[in-house]
Parts: sequence; structure tokens; C-alpha cells
Amino acid sequence: MMTANRNVSIRAKQIVSYDIALCSTTAETIARIVDHSSGHRLIFVDEGLPPQHRDEFLNQLTAAGVTFTVRSVPGDEENKTLPNVLDVVKAMNECGVKRRSAPSIVIGGGVALDIVGFAASLYRRGVPYIRVPTTLLSMVDVSVAAKTAANHLGYRNRIGTFHPASLTLVNMDYLGTLPRRHVANGSGEIFKLAVIKDAKLFDLIEAYSFSLAKSPDDIFEREKEAIGEIIFRSIAGMAEELEPNLWEGNLERVVDYGHTFSPLVEMTHIAELLHGEAVALDCLFSAIISYHRGTLSRRALERLFQVAYRLDLPVFHHGFQNIALLIDAIADSAIHRDGKQNAPLMSGIGSAYFVNDIDETEIMRAAEAMKRIHEQRLHEKTDLVGGV
Amino acid sequence: MMTANRNVSIRAKQIVSYDIALCSTTAETIARIVDHSSGHRLIFVDEGLPPQHRDEFLNQLTAAGVTFTVRSVPGDEENKTLPNVLDVVKAMNECGVKRRSAPSIVIGGGVALDIVGFAASLYRRGVPYIRVPTTLLSMVDVSVAAKTAANHLGYRNRIGTFHPASLTLVNMDYLGTLPRRHVANGSGEIFKLAVIKDAKLFDLIEAYSFSLAKSPDDIFEREKEAIGEIIFRSIAGMAEELEPNLWEGNLERVVDYGHTFSPLVEMTHIAELLHGEAVALDCLFSAIISYHRGTLSRRALERLFQVAYRLDLPVFHHGFQNIALLIDAIADSAIHRDGKQNAPLMSGIGSAYFVNDIDETEIMRAAEAMKRIHEQRLHEKTDLVGGV
Repeated sequence: MMTANRNVSIRAKQIVSYDIALCSTTAETIARIVDHSSGHRLIFVDEGLPPQHRDEFLNQLTAAGVTFTVRSVPGDEENKTLPNVLDVVKAMNECGVKRRSAPSIVIGGGVALDIVGFAASLYRRGVPYIRVPTTLLSMVDVSVAAKTAANHLGYRNRIGTFHPASLTLVNMDYLGTLPRRHVANGSGEIFKLAVIKDAKLFDLIEAYSFSLAKSPDDIFEREKEAIGEIIFRSIAGMAEELEPNLWEGNLERVVDYGHTFSPLVEMTHIAELLHGEAVALDCLFSAIISYHRGTLSRRALERLFQVAYRLDLPVFHHGFQNIALLIDAIADSAIHRDGKQNAPLMSGIGSAYFVNDIDETEIMRAAEAMKRIHEQRLHEKTDLVGGV
Repeated sequence: MMTANRNVSIRAKQIVSYDIALCSTTAETIARIVDHSSGHRLIFVDEGLPPQHRDEFLNQLTAAGVTFTVRSVPGDEENKTLPNVLDVVKAMNECGVKRRSAPSIVIGGGVALDIVGFAASLYRRGVPYIRVPTTLLSMVDVSVAAKTAANHLGYRNRIGTFHPASLTLVNMDYLGTLPRRHVANGSGEIFKLAVIKDAKLFDLIEAYSFSLAKSPDDIFEREKEAIGEIIFRSIAGMAEELEPNLWEGNLERVVDYGHTFSPLVEMTHIAELLHGEAVALDCLFSAIISYHRGTLSRRALERLFQVAYRLDLPVFHHGFQNIALLIDAIADSAIHRDGKQNAPLMSGIGSAYFVNDIDETEIMRAAEAMKRIHEQRLHEKTDLVGGV
């Protein structure tokens, strides 16, 4: 603290540290929870979690001697709202959740994790919590993030806080029972990280994309290992990007790739598009812009589309044909980036650069190209990006 | 970042720095704002701010070439609610407030400052803002704090965040037109800091308590200087306590003195008690407990009551006779302090220690003593704390 000339300057340092651990079984997950903390727990279960996972988790907690109170939280994007955050706050208040010990636990997908994390950040200005992501998307994305959020005023994540879980436990066992579309959804964020940051990860998902989409019984041991590596590499890569910039002091973020146009498109078509799907579409759209600018080869663009197909990701959506919406989207992203587009583009697979001059003409040209690729695919042309 | 054995550890450091500056005039305040940042501003004005202050502030901003949009915010404790926080968020969204530049400005009392600060922390996970406190309480208390809050579920500040204003400008000129009760209200927090931390400050308010309550025209230059010193000393003292513990990692906080019983009493009697009044009552109540424990002399207790009288602070309220309420209050404070009372008591004027064993008997005895002091005062006994 400095005082001078009737001026007081406060300068404080906060250290935030948290762990993300991969587990292979529910038993291992529970053991980590017991090891990490004690006390009566408040547990929030995603409404969409299959009953067998819910029961297994709670039964094993009981068997481990943990006492708890259970509440439900919604798991769908349309319910990622402040009233649902406040329901969690109310539960915390009713259960007398303490400020530091006996962290609450949330098990579920990204929406449930965000809702409980947001509530935990607000209740008494912040109480600790533990996350157990159960979808591929939340395993590779929310699990690493310090961010919590709710959708508000028609905008995705318009309000929120920085409040990471003290511990996140990624139980790979849940992957086996995920619906195919949700596996694809999660692979959207992996796809993003690969194309913008990690060429090795791209090679991996290119090689094992079919395995990711397989039913668990059909997966060979070698494929299982590769999927584990893909997930761990995604988490570690995300962590590497976030750690030096956790509070986003630097607004040029490569992890914003796929997030320039998609937030508004996703919110506008919230009943049709999952988050990872919207992100993948934006990745492809931005790759086309990169190709048009001459910083991405035709071969690389072709590989992106091929991998997206194989991951069951959408490669076309009418939201990316709505030029007015896309212009609004990039303008809103620019407000979020303090007035600059700071739009990441690709300079080859695994590397990025930033631009600030994407205009309407360029957006229209990319939208037309995206449509043409879609039509060529429908006509089973082999040279997908030929006429782009 | 560390990765080992399928475990990723994130460790990030955040530096938070902000300034509180004393100004003598509105012109000086505006000059500091212009010096600090630029851009079109969103300005939130406390509904309770006298029109002459509002007009002077806005006119001088315009004269300084600042363009802005003005909105109102409530200023009373009963309106320190989340819906009013969300109204501020909505205004920020409508005005396209950016993430880093052109900080919003709030001018008013502590409630208005808390509401806007809370909204600023949520909108896009945090945008900067500037505070201009206009009441004595907000000048010495909210101005220094990193905390924002809303009352919720019947509890004071049950939800909130840590999000200090980048700049707080304390314009001493506003003191001259404050209603007498609001001067007393502000002196409640100064009183707290003095009795628990700063004996020199206590001497000052003891000597100048009548001056604080005077109308501005009657104040001599020497008194003005002393009042300035009292305010600056309060701010610097608060800052000294907060800076090393800004996120309250340590839950033994001397600044919690006067805040063990008062939050619930204040909320229960929200129409009767102002914050500083409730705090002063708690300070006296806790001083009686200290006296009963033999750690505070009778002479010191007497001085506390004398100074409280002179500052026009209440020294008795039926809320502090409601034993069940007081027990609930200390139990809720204990939850906030992670299960421990961590109640600061006095070991002489200007120094504190912590206890964890205040029980019902002790609370009843203190309540009876407080009543007896009140009755002796009504009967104009000179030895106020004689029969305690």
C-alpha cells in the first residue's frame, strides 16, 4: 500500500491454483474427492445424467462414508439462466454451505457445471466446489476453464465470473455411454484446439476420428489409449493457453478461434445447434476466410472438412448464410475484445494469427464458399473444396 | 502449469491494483476522471443524490468534453437487490460498454456503488468502473473495498463478488450538504476502525466529534483540516487491513469488528437502522462483552459510549435485546467464517483479539448491560457504565 498526497494505492496479489485429474473409474473419482476434502456435501446432479451414473456415483459416495444432500440442476443450454443459478444459491444457503471447507460437488455436462460454478462464485462472494464433467465437451473445455456463466438478454455467457473449481475429475468411463451426437459435440472443441494450436493433436483426431464415434464395445484397447491421449492432450493444451492469461488481460486469444461468429449463431439457433457444433462451423468458416487470404493451403482446408465429416460435426448450417447475423456477431465479439476484432485465423494446421479487418464482402464470400462445399459434398464430388 | 500422471495443475497469479484519491472539489474530481481514461461513458447516478450535485457533476463533465449516457440507480438498502443489479447490466449491454476502456462511472452512496460494482463484475465477466462516493459512509468504507454485493434471501450481502473500482474519487465537498443522520451513519465505520485498530484516530474523533456533526458554514478551517485527516486516516487504515487479505483468505479480520451481530439485526430492522448505526451498536455491544471479559477497562468503555453519543450514533436498539436474533446472527457469521466465530473483541482502544466461545449467557449479560446503560443515560446519570 502506498499513501501520498491524499492518495491511497492498493496493490494485491491473488494466487489461484486448481487441478484437473483424469480418472478411469467412478471408484477412482470418489477416492480423489475423499482425498481432497471432507464434511457434509451438497451435491448437484445434472437432470440429464443417465440414472445409472447418478446412482453409481451417489452409492459409491455413501459407501466411502461421505454424507450429502442432493439437488438437481438443469443441463440444457436454454436453461443456463440466472434464475437457475439463484436456485443453486438458495440450496447453498438452505444447507448452510461454509465458506471454505466441504466444497459442493457438481456432476454433469457443461451447462450444469457453469450454473453451479456461477452460483458458487456469488454465494458469500465465493465458496469452493468440485466439478465432475460427464460429457466429452465439458471434459475438454469447461473442466480447464476458470470461467462460469449464464446466458442473458439473448446473448451467450453475457454474465459470469472467474471462479474455477478447486478440483475437476474427468472420469473417462462416462464416455462409453454418451449419445453419438454428444461425442461429436465434444470433439468440436478438440477440433478447434487442434487446428489452431496443435498439429500433432490434429493428426491424432484425423487418425482416430472413426474410433471416437464408435460404440464402446467395438473399441479396441489401442483405440482406447489413443482417445485417452486425445483428451489429455486437449486438456493440457487448453490449460497451457489459459494459465498465463486466466483473467483475459490479453484479449488476443488463440482459443477464441471458432468463437468469433458462433456465439450469436448458437444463441439464435439454440434449439438446433449444440455448442461444439456451432464452434466447429465457425472453425470451418474461419478456415475458409484464411484460405481466401492465402494463409491456408487448399490441402489443409480439405483435411479440415474431411476430419469434421468423420467426427460427425456439421459442416453447413443456414445460420452461417445469414450475413446480417454474422456481421452482428463479429461486432459483438469486437465489443468483447474491447473494440478490436482480434479474430484468430489459420496460417496452417496448428498455427494462428490475428486480424482486425474482416468485412462484409469477405464474410459474404466465405458464406458462399461454405455453401458451395456443402453442395459439392451432396453431389459426392471428391474434390470438396475445388470450386471455393 | 504442471502435467504428471494424467494430472494437470494450473497456477495463475492475478495482480489487482486500484487507487483511492481525496479531492476537494468537483472540478478536481472531473480532472482525475479525464486524466484516468477516455471514451463515451455510461454514468449511473444515485436516485437520492441532491439535484445540485447531480447537475454540477454532469455539467462539469460536459464542460470537460466528456460525452456520456446517464442512468439512475437506487440508493437505499432495501433496493440493494439482484433485479436492480441486472438493470445496470442491461444498461451496460444496451450502451455496448466495452471490456476494458471507457469505464462506467457511479456517483452516489454505498448502495448505488455496490449495485453498479456488482453489475460491472458480472457483465462480460467484469468491466472496469469508477466510483464517486457522496456519503461519509461510502467515502470511508465502500471506497476502499474490493467487495460488491446485493442483499439476498433476507440476508445482508449474501451474494456478491470481489471487483474493486479501478479508481475511487472521494470529493470532500459533498460532506457539507449531507443530512446530519448520514454524517453520523458514516462515522459509525470510522468509529469501528478507531476502536479496533487506531487509538490515534479515536483521539481525533473524540476531539472533533462535535465538528463532524456541525453544519458546514459553522466549521472553522482548523476543524475542516481535522475532518480531512480523520477521513484520510480511516481510508488508509482500512486499506492497510484489506490489502494483504483482499480475497479474505484469512478469516480472522479485525475489520469484522462491529459486523458479527449487526448484519442480521440490520436486515431485520432495515427500515429503522442504517448500516453505520447497526455497526456502531455492534461495536458497543462487543465492547461490553470485552469489558465483561476483563480485557477492556471501565474508563475505555465509558469513552466509547461518550464518543458514540457525540457522534449522534445510536447506543441502544431493541434488536440488540432480541437474544434469539443475536444467536442466529453469530451462528450465521460463523458460517461466513468457515465454521468459527472468529469474533474480534477489544483489548483496549485501538487493539483487538479473536474469540470463538461467545455463548448465550454472555450475549444475555451484554444485552442486559446495554439496556442498563441506556436507562442510566435517560436518567442522566453521569457514571454511564457504572452498574454494568
